[in-house]
Amino acid sequence: MLSLLSLRTQIDAGTLTPYEAIALSQAAIAEREPEVRALVCCNPDPVVPEHGPLAGIAVGVKDILDTADLPTQMGSPIYADWRPRADAAAVARLKRLGAVPLAKTTTTAFAFLDPTGTRNPRGLGHTPGGSSAGSAAAIAAGMLPLALGTQTGGSVIRPAAYCGVVGLKPSFGLLPTVGMKCFSWTLDTLGLFTAGVADAAHALALMTGRPGLDLPATDPGMPRIGFVLQDFCAPAEPEALAALERVRDAVEAAGARPRDVALPALFAEAFGLHGTIQDFEAAQALDWEYTTHRANLGPLLGAHLDAAQAVTPAAYDASLTVADRARRQLPDLFLEHDFDVILTLSAPGPAPEGYASTGDSRFNRLWTLMGVPCVTVPVGSTASGLPLGVQVIARLGDDARAVMAARLVETLMREAYR
Amino acid sequence: MLSLLSLRTQIDAGTLTPYEAIALSQAAIAEREPEVRALVCCNPDPVVPEHGPLAGIAVGVKDILDTADLPTQMGSPIYADWRPRADAAAVARLKRLGAVPLAKTTTTAFAFLDPTGTRNPRGLGHTPGGSSAGSAAAIAAGMLPLALGTQTGGSVIRPAAYCGVVGLKPSFGLLPTVGMKCFSWTLDTLGLFTAGVADAAHALALMTGRPGLDLPATDPGMPRIGFVLQDFCAPAEPEALAALERVRDAVEAAGARPRDVALPALFAEAFGLHGTIQDFEAAQALDWEYTTHRANLGPLLGAHLDAAQAVTPAAYDASLTVADRARRQLPDLFLEHDFDVILTLSAPGPAPEGYASTGDSRFNRLWTLMGVPCVTVPVGSTASGLPLGVQVIARLGDDARAVMAARLVETLMREAYR
Repeated sequence: MLSLLSLRTQIDAGTLTPYEAIALSQAAIAEREPEVRALVCCNPDPVVPEHGPLAGIAVGVKDILDTADLPTQMGSPIYADWRPRADAAAVARLKRLGAVPLAKTTTTAFAFLDPTGTRNPRGLGHTPGGSSAGSAAAIAAGMLPLALGTQTGGSVIRPAAYCGVVGLKPSFGLLPTVGMKCFSWTLDTLGLFTAGVADAAHALALMTGRPGLDLPATDPGMPRIGFVLQDFCAPAEPEALAALERVRDAVEAAGARPRDVALPALFAEAFGLHGTIQDFEAAQALDWEYTTHRANLGPLLGAHLDAAQAVTPAAYDASLTVADRARRQLPDLFLEHDFDVILTLSAPGPAPEGYASTGDSRFNRLWTLMGVPCVTVPVGSTASGLPLGVQVIARLGDDARAVMAARLVETLMREAYR
Repeated sequence: MLSLLSLRTQIDAGTLTPYEAIALSQAAIAEREPEVRALVCCNPDPVVPEHGPLAGIAVGVKDILDTADLPTQMGSPIYADWRPRADAAAVARLKRLGAVPLAKTTTTAFAFLDPTGTRNPRGLGHTPGGSSAGSAAAIAAGMLPLALGTQTGGSVIRPAAYCGVVGLKPSFGLLPTVGMKCFSWTLDTLGLFTAGVADAAHALALMTGRPGLDLPATDPGMPRIGFVLQDFCAPAEPEALAALERVRDAVEAAGARPRDVALPALFAEAFGLHGTIQDFEAAQALDWEYTTHRANLGPLLGAHLDAAQAVTPAAYDASLTVADRARRQLPDLFLEHDFDVILTLSAPGPAPEGYASTGDSRFNRLWTLMGVPCVTVPVGSTASGLPLGVQVIARLGDDARAVMAARLVETLMREAYR
């Protein structure tokens, strides 16, 4: 994979020019894209800034994010050849930092569940996940050092875990969603895909202008860790649970004293209401598409929006009330059980076989609804070689701690698998 | 003015067809628009649905709201001739209800402070206010029965008051902002302009699918009223204060026992931080425009975004924390002082003379930040004939009560001026 920090180190040292760094991505795309199919389109002749903290970094932009220089097609024939006038806020910011938005990456139609044509580079014949399929696959295939995705249910963490890369969904609102095709304004969150945790932390710090989000130069020490299994939803697969156990063993061996945390009933209730909030808002957000292009929405999204028409304002209001209560109570849970971060699964198992489904977001939806920062870290693979991920979660606004703990897990598990 | 409910009553009675109702707007536009200049463009040959609860209602759509059938130019040469692919969610919803988005209404560039060319129909030579200038003026000139606007500071309530029409800014999130050009995602709120309170309530109830927001058929009784003067900001003009006094006299005569409420210091602090939140977000939301078209932004917006680059994440975070605290405390204030609604000024005075300024939003910014429903009601005019408005404010989510109290004020003041 292409490491953002490694490229930047070489550029800063003068051993690589930004132009050469972009050419590395272009060469990798030429080699890998025919097989992986992660990209919707590329800028064939990009302007490469020579300066800026992200000069030389080729970025993949999920195709529900507006780009002024490349089409933005939402994964849907309804937006065939569509050209926005402006860049999404996050894309404009990346350009300011010197990065090159080199390619648009595949997305399920409107970031829902109808699969893309993208293949999982770590397990051809398996889904790369969704909805940010192309962003995850492009990182995994070594084509790009940074890609943007979005998460409304589990669309950053799940594909990142399935493809064996780092996925970072920051706190709600930290990265602007301006210029993103809206599905649910209460839930839509921008996220990053990279080869390693340090790459993601560095990109997030630069994009937000918050240097404190980068990894510290000195060892931050061992975080207090709570393990959560979400016993209110269907159990995970044995190989995923075994991976989480290996992480527990590793952090214990490193001196942590993790505790098991059962989430109070309020969180199970909130988990169950994610869909009510999402669907009530999606019916409004996609009203024009539904009214004028129902037949072209994609079979899963079309049927889902049919059903979403029936969600009542009363059900929506009640769900928002529960979600708000859960968000307010979550920091108390951290205090009460004395932990800084939660570790849980990123997905119920490895990438499912075939391309008919993009997999299951049940280990993601609650955390998206809570708005808290989540990082998935690759922690080895199944017997058949499919990647497995573990998810690190921190309090709202405590993205720095999420990233530090994710870095620790990454380091320990790399040592374990060396 | 054209009353939405009056048109609908005639259509329901069979004495007016939807087509004829739309033709009334077209005729009024032909007569008044050359003088008022409220419209950016009109649909010359609209499809007029025969059915639907808003069939026959011509709607003006502020030109920062996307329309698939009409250009959307953001009040800016940067978006000259721009054609979005989709309708904004609120526009799609109006079409479903049978309404006809007949015209785009003028907006200050990106809904900031650089004036439009629109004139105040109630006082030629005076500003109509901003940023939703065209929507307010089009209602006041009798060209349309319903118009959409947006408020980030005071862009619905202020122009409505200056033009002598009803402006309704509902609770934050009640009307979707999907397809609205973003200025500040924490503050941007969609609103409605109509001839009367009952028109606005009816439109809001239909647009949100919440019949409980319509005015009740029976007298809801006298609300408990608190009068607020915002003594933490510069005082209002004598004629505006006198109008508020007349409203107090009228509600007292009708049996209310209003109380004066001084807002605690927390609200003065929140008021002062509105700009920090707005500007930090605007710098991101308009990053592409600022980076690539700085010279065409408009002089006020350009200079404002220059300064906005310096707002720090720390200042923004601290401001959000104060705003959140104030939002949580506001319901207690209602409880403690035993009132259902706040009455205050809609603006510091009548529409200022000339077209260089769109007026002052200091009686609006706090309430936008609080996310609470606000309605401005015309309550007479100055000695020189300029309209004055009074603002009714309720708790977040209590839009029904705001509308009922606004209706009461409207009724009492109409009687007073009969």
